Amino acid sequence: MFLRNCWYVAAESREVSRQPFGRVLLNEPVVLYRREDGSPVALEDRCCHRRAPLHLGTLIGDRLRCGYHGFTFDTSGTCVAIPGQDKVAAGIGVRSYPVAERHRYVWVWFGEKEKADPTLIPDFSYNDDPAWAAVGACLHVEANYLLLVENLIDLSHVPFVHSSTIGSAEDTNPKLKTERGEGFVRVTRDAPGISTPPSMRALGFAPVVDQSKIITFKPASNIWIDIPTKDAAPVAGRNEPMQRRVMILNAITPETERSCHYFWVNARDFDLGDTERSAFFLKTVTQAFNEDKNILEAQQKNIELDPKAPTLNVNADWGGVQAVRMMDGLITAETARA
Amino acid sequence: MFLRNCWYVAAESREVSRQPFGRVLLNEPVVLYRREDGSPVALEDRCCHRRAPLHLGTLIGDRLRCGYHGFTFDTSGTCVAIPGQDKVAAGIGVRSYPVAERHRYVWVWFGEKEKADPTLIPDFSYNDDPAWAAVGACLHVEANYLLLVENLIDLSHVPFVHSSTIGSAEDTNPKLKTERGEGFVRVTRDAPGISTPPSMRALGFAPVVDQSKIITFKPASNIWIDIPTKDAAPVAGRNEPMQRRVMILNAITPETERSCHYFWVNARDFDLGDTERSAFFLKTVTQAFNEDKNILEAQQKNIELDPKAPTLNVNADWGGVQAVRMMDGLITAETARA
Amino acid sequence: MFLRNCWYVAAESREVSRQPFGRVLLNEPVVLYRREDGSPVALEDRCCHRRAPLHLGTLIGDRLRCGYHGFTFDTSGTCVAIPGQDKVAAGIGVRSYPVAERHRYVWVWFGEKEKADPTLIPDFSYNDDPAWAAVGACLHVEANYLLLVENLIDLSHVPFVHSSTIGSAEDTNPKLKTERGEGFVRVTRDAPGISTPPSMRALGFAPVVDQSKIITFKPASNIWIDIPTKDAAPVAGRNEPMQRRVMILNAITPETERSCHYFWVNARDFDLGDTERSAFFLKTVTQAFNEDKNILEAQQKNIELDPKAPTLNVNADWGGVQAVRMMDGLITAETARA
Repeated sequence: MFLRNCWYVAAESREVSRQPFGRVLLNEPVVLYRREDGSPVALEDRCCHRRAPLHLGTLIGDRLRCGYHGFTFDTSGTCVAIPGQDKVAAGIGVRSYPVAERHRYVWVWFGEKEKADPTLIPDFSYNDDPAWAAVGACLHVEANYLLLVENLIDLSHVPFVHSSTIGSAEDTNPKLKTERGEGFVRVTRDAPGISTPPSMRALGFAPVVDQSKIITFKPASNIWIDIPTKDAAPVAGRNEPMQRRVMILNAITPETERSCHYFWVNARDFDLGDTERSAFFLKTVTQAFNEDKNILEAQQKNIELDPKAPTLNVNADWGGVQAVRMMDGLITAETARA
Repeated sequence: MFLRNCWYVAAESREVSRQPFGRVLLNEPVVLYRREDGSPVALEDRCCHRRAPLHLGTLIGDRLRCGYHGFTFDTSGTCVAIPGQDKVAAGIGVRSYPVAERHRYVWVWFGEKEKADPTLIPDFSYNDDPAWAAVGACLHVEANYLLLVENLIDLSHVPFVHSSTIGSAEDTNPKLKTERGEGFVRVTRDAPGISTPPSMRALGFAPVVDQSKIITFKPASNIWIDIPTKDAAPVAGRNEPMQRRVMILNAITPETERSCHYFWVNARDFDLGDTERSAFFLKTVTQAFNEDKNILEAQQKNIELDPKAPTLNVNADWGGVQAVRMMDGLITAETARA
Repeated sequence: MFLRNCWYVAAESREVSRQPFGRVLLNEPVVLYRREDGSPVALEDRCCHRRAPLHLGTLIGDRLRCGYHGFTFDTSGTCVAIPGQDKVAAGIGVRSYPVAERHRYVWVWFGEKEKADPTLIPDFSYNDDPAWAAVGACLHVEANYLLLVENLIDLSHVPFVHSSTIGSAEDTNPKLKTERGEGFVRVTRDAPGISTPPSMRALGFAPVVDQSKIITFKPASNIWIDIPTKDAAPVAGRNEPMQRRVMILNAITPETERSCHYFWVNARDFDLGDTERSAFFLKTVTQAFNEDKNILEAQQKNIELDPKAPTLNVNADWGGVQAVRMMDGLITAETARA
């Protein structure tokens, strides 16, 4: 059971091209491609004829021709040609999905089409704002998407999972502020005077920094993490404390009940044209998020070994629990309506 | 549910030797080997004692000794020796299968033994007729066998799947003749004046040919495809149009509900002793049938993702639909009798 | 369903260190590590918080800190620290298992704690008796543990599975003595005048030997195989017949219903300090037990293909059948009590 009336990231913009691309999303096979004018199309990746995946097919202009028997579909999913037949009966076709491209992502809507309002697309503008430099990738994780949602809302894991990459081992006692509003959950973690995380040390920070993390969750599974960092001690030859802001955007799209696609972006408001800096962040954050993947997949295996084993909620889980409850409520309401 | 009272190809003749060979067929483990006189034997590949596969055992003359505890079986499956015991109680043994070798294949009968009439073996004589040169192989396909049956009866896929190997991209509008007779389904596709398929171009045909395909299906899963090809345009220095006949034999044996063994033969009535020609056909057709395997396995995965997703029948499916219906009828009747 | 009120080998002593080590035993995730004083600890390998495996964590003194959010557990499984909280509520923790180290193994008790009497640990003292030289290993086998129990009690497989390693092809007609006592099953196989097994030939035995195997099974899955071997023919220059004793210890711990961990030891009462001899036994017996693994995993696959296919018991199975019955009785009684 997934929330359907919302926008999900289906792919990074660069993944979608004139070569049809197939991905399972919310347990459904989806094929993505671009029209000749560059705009994206998302169709059911399963021919209505014999269920072959359309991503094995060929683009003829803006139309996708199945690689099996040549059934051809326009961008609305309507079957417009069947080899060996003069006519195609009305109503034959595959499902098309509302699709939009924004912030270097291709977003797909799995719910009722008439509700697919592009203004509802989560604001991931840091990913293409010229005032920011952004790197990112898509990671396949063999774990239920909510495990990753919880992971990102409860950053109390950072000192334990990431102390050799993006975290500080000392960041275990932050001031926590938590908030549930209309359509969002927010957790603010202030960690003054912690030893500087390795990734920040590389930027030239003092050995001790003040770091905050403002984590905002919005359904279905979008999380913004705003991370301002500032020298907490004087540095020789530096008049003003160095301060930098990193924004981590996270969009998680379920693949199946036990796997998901994790789209992440690391945006920064400094060294904008510095490609070496970009390569550094891409490498370091990839390494960090593979540390999460390692834990999450082990957690998923443990859950499958005994799905009834209990869990326990503590203070730090407040945000994750609120997010899961918000999702439960939305899914229940959506299901009841349908 | 598989049709049982019929002959299935269990192996190519060359696969069966004095080294016992195990294969799962119709969800049953079968071991194949040859007697000292060369004749084939097919037994249940599961010792009656502790269920170890007998193909891990050793031949002692014509008898097969289990590799685990040495239980020994004669070619009827009767247990004739149990180490450490003087006598073997009557009735102990493994199942034996009626078996016959014909047309370079070893055929096995899974149904009632008294019905195993060798004259019912499908006529695959092109595979060992001296007037024909034949090459072939066995391909393991992770898809239900009926998907492959449909693939072979409805050759409207050829211009889309095989245009770089054995098909012509123009062959999308053939004259179709279809026929359902007593125990067979036949589809005739006449494609006059199509661009010559790559595999035929290599034989020296004109750039345009007239090509027919006469496809005959007989239960459980045997398909003959007779392919006469003829120059459709004059070739300099050639008085008579070149014409050649290729016959593709196909026998598909279910392994499980979701996988099958695909035995294919490409026989030709020309260049009989030409080993280079044989190597060419083996290579090209292997490549082509791997194109099918690629589609079929993707189709199977899509089906498993949502087994209830509908399919659609169009004109070209007539033959496949008739074949599947014929099979349904036969299986229902067989089950009702049992 | 596994017997729980008994000691199982969880690991070889050398596998357990200050680096936490995870293993699934009886379908439960278990983490093993050593205290600073070297004594072993066995805890549930699933954090009570979010079910991450604790073996991905870190030891802080004798305490294990989860690698995800830093929940810290003492050796009793009690949670003693939750980062970001001053206090830990009472009763929070993971399961701890009674554990004992003996005979170079770490043993774990999965049943009622108060019954975990270390004097019930099977006597595997040959593994660390200075009068014996022992080698061994742990083999992962994708088969139900009872298949391996049957394998070890019924050594009539030896001449068929192991004739190129530790068995004699002639050892098919031993004198068998069988016995079921209080809490044990014993099978004695006397094989006088058999051709010397390859592994024994390497020790300098005559080409023909008298060899016995005294096999003792005790629940849940411990098997001692005492193998005295003696020259059965004179050897030039040897006044007295060579005689040697090898003792094979076997402890099998279920991983899941379809897989197990096989801990084996080959102990000998000769050439005690001879490291080359030890290397020889380690290599030869590893090879032999991989021959078993090969059969057992094939057997398991055949069983899964048709779980209802029958088995057959013959004289040689008496011991195995008694062992399985003993286990059935114990498990039924234990379940009834619970």
